This record gives sequence, structure tokens and C-alpha cells, in this order.
Amino acid sequence: MSPLARFSVNQMTVKQLSLPELVEGCLELGIPGVGLWREPVNVYGLDATAALVGAAGLAVTTLCRGGFLTAVDPLDRKRALDDNRAAVDEAAALGTDTLVLVSGGLPSGSKDLHGARERVADALGELGPYAASRGVRLAIEPLHPMYAADRCVVSTLAQALDLAERFPADQVGVTVDTYHLWWDDTAPAQIARAGAGGRIHAFQLADWTTPLPEGVLNGRGPLGDGSIDFRAWRAHVEAAGYAGPIEVELFNDALWARDGREVLAETTARFLEHAG
Amino acid sequence: MSPLARFSVNQMTVKQLSLPELVEGCLELGIPGVGLWREPVNVYGLDATAALVGAAGLAVTTLCRGGFLTAVDPLDRKRALDDNRAAVDEAAALGTDTLVLVSGGLPSGSKDLHGARERVADALGELGPYAASRGVRLAIEPLHPMYAADRCVVSTLAQALDLAERFPADQVGVTVDTYHLWWDDTAPAQIARAGAGGRIHAFQLADWTTPLPEGVLNGRGPLGDGSIDFRAWRAHVEAAGYAGPIEVELFNDALWARDGREVLAETTARFLEHAG
Repeated sequence: MSPLARFSVNQMTVKQLSLPELVEGCLELGIPGVGLWREPVNVYGLDATAALVGAAGLAVTTLCRGGFLTAVDPLDRKRALDDNRAAVDEAAALGTDTLVLVSGGLPSGSKDLHGARERVADALGELGPYAASRGVRLAIEPLHPMYAADRCVVSTLAQALDLAERFPADQVGVTVDTYHLWWDDTAPAQIARAGAGGRIHAFQLADWTTPLPEGVLNGRGPLGDGSIDFRAWRAHVEAAGYAGPIEVELFNDALWARDGREVLAETTARFLEHAG
Repeated sequence: MSPLARFSVNQMTVKQLSLPELVEGCLELGIPGVGLWREPVNVYGLDATAALVGAAGLAVTTLCRGGFLTAVDPLDRKRALDDNRAAVDEAAALGTDTLVLVSGGLPSGSKDLHGARERVADALGELGPYAASRGVRLAIEPLHPMYAADRCVVSTLAQALDLAERFPADQVGVTVDTYHLWWDDTAPAQIARAGAGGRIHAFQLADWTTPLPEGVLNGRGPLGDGSIDFRAWRAHVEAAGYAGPIEVELFNDALWARDGREVLAETTARFLEHAG
């Protein structure tokens, strides 16, 4: 098997590339899969993207992202559910079986993390059957606790599994992303729990580098630049039975400022060096 | 009992004030306790600080801080242990029974969080008896997971208690700080565990506000500005049997740029409004 057989590059890592440039770059480098994002896909066109990627023989490993399901206001809540159903449809149209979900943060003025997490659970109950009926699994992504207030009230893999396990595994599972979980000494046991339940729906890599930038969004490090032992995390998910794609997803202002083809090649080399 | 009877202001909250200004401000506002930091205390003079604070009748609720115990290099390690013994001596001289410990981050180039935590445990084994012999308890402070690489490999209250419980409670306990723990749904149960073992040695408050500043050090919010329900956390520690001081410790560039007396008064008012 090629050492890149399970490699996938998330579109956000090289967002400076157009979709045709991304596809061409993947073909040149032998990258077999891509994780896509809804916004650039919809700019290029959903059907056009599906045709482009399909013609190239690339697998779409995930679609990012649904979620933002914590609103209290009924109209906001309905809008969010409608938008997530649209995201499921887009995932199906792109031929991926995995929609990554970021839960959403606290509503303005709220201090109730528990209540927000319960609203996520309620939404999963509505969205899970819809997704499964279209062959799409929802993959709750716990984000690092530094995002708990403003982006994602689900901060640990244990919390994500507590939510996912209320539903069948073909409806709801989890995304394991090293950037968000690397600090957590309970995560390996939770990966085993997720694997035993068939709920590892996506596996993503990014390195932890410091100092964190203002807003802490766009400082995810290239593999090898930071504190994370990727082979150890790969071993954890594989010991749990995961044999699916391994996506590298970097949000990084410095990388975005560079030539996208060069970043794509470097990301591929880093994957082989640190996680291959 | 005065509603301020358990209130303590950490010196860092108003670091623009000199020690005499801080003491005078506390007397004027009826603040009965202060948490002190080693660096400004040593600039003013250890004996002079003890005399100043003692004459004013202020309690020194904690000394911040010892720790940084993760070095691998033997000479660095010896220096850290010597420095921590000095910190214990300073705590005793100031009349406080609690030295707050920040564990330290990963050594340069290391990706081994577990090993670093074990070196912290080894160091506690050396420092605990020394501290207890001088009437000082070590209070391991779990810092938010966003500091795991560069500042503190102990990220959760569970991890801190796993370390502390290897030693007698009069040697090693924990610091519960809302800023670091607020996102963690397992923290209330861990507070109960800490309280049952007599290991809640300090309780500190700061609010979680976003966006986080670059470097994520100096954005701790005034009580009421952020996402944390302080009365709920106070109820957790009190249900666990904690009846000690409640320190407000803010690291905040915007507060430091203002008049320190005004910030001190406002911090007192916020304590009464949100945690009193």
C-alpha cells in the first residue's frame, strides 16, 4: 500500500488554492483524498465540485462543517437545523459519508454550558436520522477548551461521546483531532471507547505551537513544528480499530501567505515524516 | 460576618500598585486578605513586606508561585528545587500556609507530557516534607489546557489530584481557579474529591472573556464580564467543605493600564455582585 494511501488534505490547509488547483496538486503529489469546506465548494458550485473531484478520482473524506446548534431563540434554532440539513445534502452530493460538526458556543450572555450541550443533543436527535437516510454520518468534533465560550461547548472526547452514544453509530460519531485533544491524558481511553462503538468517523492532524495568536484560531502548526507525537495518536486510533483517512487540517496565517502548491507539497512531506 | 470576610485580592490584579498602596487600599475598602507574588515582594523586601502586611492586620492568603518542575537537565532541576525551597521559606516568612505551584511546561523539543508530569511528582516528593516542616502546603494549580505546552503540563483538577494524592494533604493539595477549570464538566466531581481529602488549599476567581489576546496570558476578565457562573463554583467548593479565602486574581492588560485604586474598588464591588 502506498504510504499516502490514507492521507487526505483538508482544503483549509491550502485555502489559497482554487478547487481546480487543489485537485491538480493532489494528482501531482499522489494525494488520494481531500476534506472539503462548504463555503468554497458553494462558491465553485456543488455539482461542479462533485464532477471535478469525481473525475480526478479523489475521495472526499469529510465535509466541514455543520453544527452551531446551541441557539435558544426558536427562529435561530430552526435556521441552524435547516442549514445542517443542507450541509447533509451537500455531503451526500459530494460523495462523502462524513459531515464534521462544530457544536457552537454559548449564546450571548449565557453562562450555561450544560444547557447548551443539551441543545446540541436535541439537535442531533433531529439531524441524525435525516443524515443517515442520505448515507451521511455526523461527526461531532470536540474543540480545544479554549473555544468553549465562543465556538464549541463540546471540549473533550468524553463529552462528544456522551452526546454521540445517545444515537446509533451510523448517525452520530466523533472527529478525533490531535490539535484539540493532545493535552488530555484521558483521550486515549476515550479513543478506545469511540473505536469500540464504531464512532471514530474522522481523524485529523495539526500540531500545537506557541505562542498562540490573538483570537487563537489560526495558529495550528505544520506537523513536526510543535508538541504533538503524531505516531502515538495514530497508534491510539488504529488500536481502536480505525483504518480510515488521516486528514491534515491546518489553520495558519503564515501558511496561507505562501504559495499553495509549495505548502501542499510540504504538508505531504511532513505527513510522511511525522505520521506516515 | 462581613460579606468581604473571605475576600482576598491577588496582588497581580493590581500590579500597578506598590505594596504600601495595595495595603492602604485594602484597609480603606475593608479587604481582609491579599495573595502576594514573590517578585514584587522581593523587590520591596521580604521582611519589610511581612512587617507592612502584619501591621495592617491583613492575611496573606497565598504566595504565588513555586513550581516549574519539569526540567530534565540535572542542573536545571536542582536550581528549580532550590528555588522552590526558597519560595517555601518566603511563604513561611510572610505568614501564609499556602504556596501556589505552576508545574511548568514541556522542556524544549519534548513531546512527552506524561514524563513531564512524573517529574513534577518526583519534585513534590522532595518538596512536600520540606514545606510541611515549615507549616506551608503546596497547592498544585491546574492551568487551562491552552498552557499545557509552554507553562503547565497539569491541565485538569483530576490530574492535579492524581499528583497530590500521592502525598499527605498537609504537604500537597490543589488550587481551584475558575479561569482554568470552568469549561470542564468533570471539575465539580473533582472538587468534591479534593474537598473530601482536605486538599482544596486555594480558591481563585477570574472570568473567561473572548477574544483571547496574543499569547493568551493577560486576558482574564473582571468578574461578570465573561462566561463563568461564580456563585455556582463557590457553591461547589463550599459543598466540598471549603471555607477558606476567595481570591480574585486577574491578569489583564486593560486593568493594568488603569488607576490601581479604582481597579481595586471595582474588583471588590464585582466580587460582592457576582460571588458574594
